[in-house]
Amino acid sequence: MLPKDWLVRLQQKDRKSIAKLITLLEGTSLERNEILRHIYPLVGKAHRIGITGPPGAGKSTLISAWTTYLRSLGLTVGIIAVDPSSPFTGGALLGDRVRMNRHATDHGVWMRSLSNRGVMGGLSLATHEVAHLLDVAGYDVLFLETVGVGQAELEIVHNADTVMLVLPPGAGDGVQIAKAGVMEIADILVVNKADQPFADRLVAELQDVLRISRKKDWTPPIIRTVASQNRGMEELWNAAQTHRGYLQEPKRASKKAENRLIQEVSLYLHQQIRLLVEEELAKPIRRQQMKQIIQTKSSPQDLIDKWWAEGFLSYKPNTDPHSQKGGKT
Amino acid sequence: MLPKDWLVRLQQKDRKSIAKLITLLEGTSLERNEILRHIYPLVGKAHRIGITGPPGAGKSTLISAWTTYLRSLGLTVGIIAVDPSSPFTGGALLGDRVRMNRHATDHGVWMRSLSNRGVMGGLSLATHEVAHLLDVAGYDVLFLETVGVGQAELEIVHNADTVMLVLPPGAGDGVQIAKAGVMEIADILVVNKADQPFADRLVAELQDVLRISRKKDWTPPIIRTVASQNRGMEELWNAAQTHRGYLQEPKRASKKAENRLIQEVSLYLHQQIRLLVEEELAKPIRRQQMKQIIQTKSSPQDLIDKWWAEGFLSYKPNTDPHSQKGGKT
Repeated sequence: MLPKDWLVRLQQKDRKSIAKLITLLEGTSLERNEILRHIYPLVGKAHRIGITGPPGAGKSTLISAWTTYLRSLGLTVGIIAVDPSSPFTGGALLGDRVRMNRHATDHGVWMRSLSNRGVMGGLSLATHEVAHLLDVAGYDVLFLETVGVGQAELEIVHNADTVMLVLPPGAGDGVQIAKAGVMEIADILVVNKADQPFADRLVAELQDVLRISRKKDWTPPIIRTVASQNRGMEELWNAAQTHRGYLQEPKRASKKAENRLIQEVSLYLHQQIRLLVEEELAKPIRRQQMKQIIQTKSSPQDLIDKWWAEGFLSYKPNTDPHSQKGGKT
Repeated sequence: MLPKDWLVRLQQKDRKSIAKLITLLEGTSLERNEILRHIYPLVGKAHRIGITGPPGAGKSTLISAWTTYLRSLGLTVGIIAVDPSSPFTGGALLGDRVRMNRHATDHGVWMRSLSNRGVMGGLSLATHEVAHLLDVAGYDVLFLETVGVGQAELEIVHNADTVMLVLPPGAGDGVQIAKAGVMEIADILVVNKADQPFADRLVAELQDVLRISRKKDWTPPIIRTVASQNRGMEELWNAAQTHRGYLQEPKRASKKAENRLIQEVSLYLHQQIRLLVEEELAKPIRRQQMKQIIQTKSSPQDLIDKWWAEGFLSYKPNTDPHSQKGGKT
C-alpha cells in the first residue's frame, strides 16, 4: 500500500519513507507505476556521479572523503553502491563499510548497497529508480559506485551525469584499463593514492592515452587525490562541477536526457519480458513441448519459431507483470 | 552460405569448417537454424567440463596440463575459454596463452577464446553453440573455462556436465568463495598449487564447508593438483569420470538434459527479443514518442504500457531476426 503522504515525506528525506518506496518499487506494477508517474516530473536536480575502477583503487574511501567535504559545504549526499559481479569481491560490503563509519549518524547522507538480485537488467533498473527517488528527495549529489569495470558496471555508471574512473598507481594496468573501453565513458580520471610511488608515471601514461584517443570536445581532466587523507576533494568537486556545466549546454543536455531515457525504457522492457518469458517457460504445456524436443533431438530454435507463430509473448498491460511471476497458469 | 558437405567436414574435425560454422552461427537465422537442425540430433557424446575459480587459481595451466594427459590417453580435447567480465583481467588472453604453447600444433586439440560481444545472453548462447559444434565434431572432452565466478560465468559453466571449482591455497577467501553460491554448482573441488603452504588448511576448510552444507546425493570430492608440474591429472580425470557415471543414471540424465534445454531455450528467446527491442527502439516513431515523454516529464512505464496495448513486439518467425538488426524500418 502506498501511504497517502508519501511524496511529501520523500521530499522531506524521511528515511523510513525512502526505504518503503524502494520496497514498493520492487513490488507490484500498480504501485510502481503510481510512484514513477509522480516522481518523473520532479527528477533532474541531483548531480549524479558514477564512480568506477578496479578493486583496490580506493573508491569507497574516496566517496567517504568526498562526502565529508560536500557535507562541510552544506550539501546532502546519496550513495548507491552497486555490486553486480563476483561473489568474492565482497563488494556488497563496501557500502556497509562507509555506512558504518563517520556518516552513519548524519541525516544529510543516505546510503544503500544494491547487490545482484540475480538479473543484470534488474540491478541497473533498481539503480535508476533508487537514484530517481533520492533525486526527488532532494539529495544534492548522488554517488553511483560500482565495484569493478565489467559490462554490467559500465552500464550502471553510464547513467550518471559525470563518470569518474578511479585508478591506483603502480597497478601497472592503468593504461590497459584506460584503453579498454572504460576510458570512453570516463569524464574525469582520478589517480587516487597519489602519494604513492608511480603516481606520476600513471598520470603521464594517462596523458599519453588521452592525447592519442580523445577527439571529442570534452577532455577528461586527471585529478590526483589521497582519499585516506581527504586530499584532493576540492579539486575533484570543481572538476565535477565544470563537467556538469559543460553538460548543461542545451543540445548536450537533451542528448544526454534522450540517451538515458532510451536506456531506461530498454531496461523496463527487458525486465517485463524476462518475467513474461520465465512465466511462459514454467507452464506445463511448454515443459511438455521441451521434453518432446529432447526426445526427438530436434532444434530448440524450431520450437521457438513455432511459439512465435502462435502468438507467444503477448503482454496484457492491464494485468500485473510482477504478481504474474508466481505463475497462476 | 552453408557449404554442401559441412556436416561431414565438421565430423572430420576440419578446423576451417568449424571456424566457418561458428561465424555462420553468429549470422543470419536461416543458416543458423539449418546448422542447429542438423546438429541437435548428433549432440551428446562429449564430456563437457566447466572450469571456474578466482583469477590466479591456475585454471589455464590446469587445463593445459590436463589436456596433455588426455592426449596421452588418445582422447581429443576442445577448449572454450570465455571471458564475460572485466576488461582488465586480460582473460580473453588466457585462451591464447594455452593456444600458443605445446598444444598449438596438435590437431587433437581445438581451442578458442570467446570474449564478450556486449551482451551477456549472447555469450552464454555462443558457448552453448560452439560446444555443440565441437561435440558433433567428435571431441571427447570439452573444457568450458571462465575467468571468474560472477553471475555470467556461473551461467556458462552451469551448462557443463561436470563443474569444477579451482581454488588456490592461501588466498584466504577459499571458504568464502565456497560458501558464496559457487559451491552449490561445483561437482568437483580442485585445490591447485597443492605444493604451496596452506594447501592442507584449504582442504580442511573445504571439508568443513562440505560437512555443513551438502545434503545432496553427490558429495564433491576434493582433488589436489600441481598443474604446473602436471601432477594430479589422473586423479582429476578419474573424479570427472566418476561424476559422469553418476550423471548417467537415467532419471538424473533426463533432468540434466531438461535443465540444459530450458536454459538454452531461454537464451535463444532473450537473444531474439533483445534484437527485436533494439530494432523497435531505433524506429523514428519510438524516438519521437520518447522525446515527447522527456518534454512532458511523464513516466516511461506509461509509454511502455501503451506500446504493449498496441501490440508491441510481435515477432514474425518467417523473417530473419539477425538481418533485421540493421533496421530497415
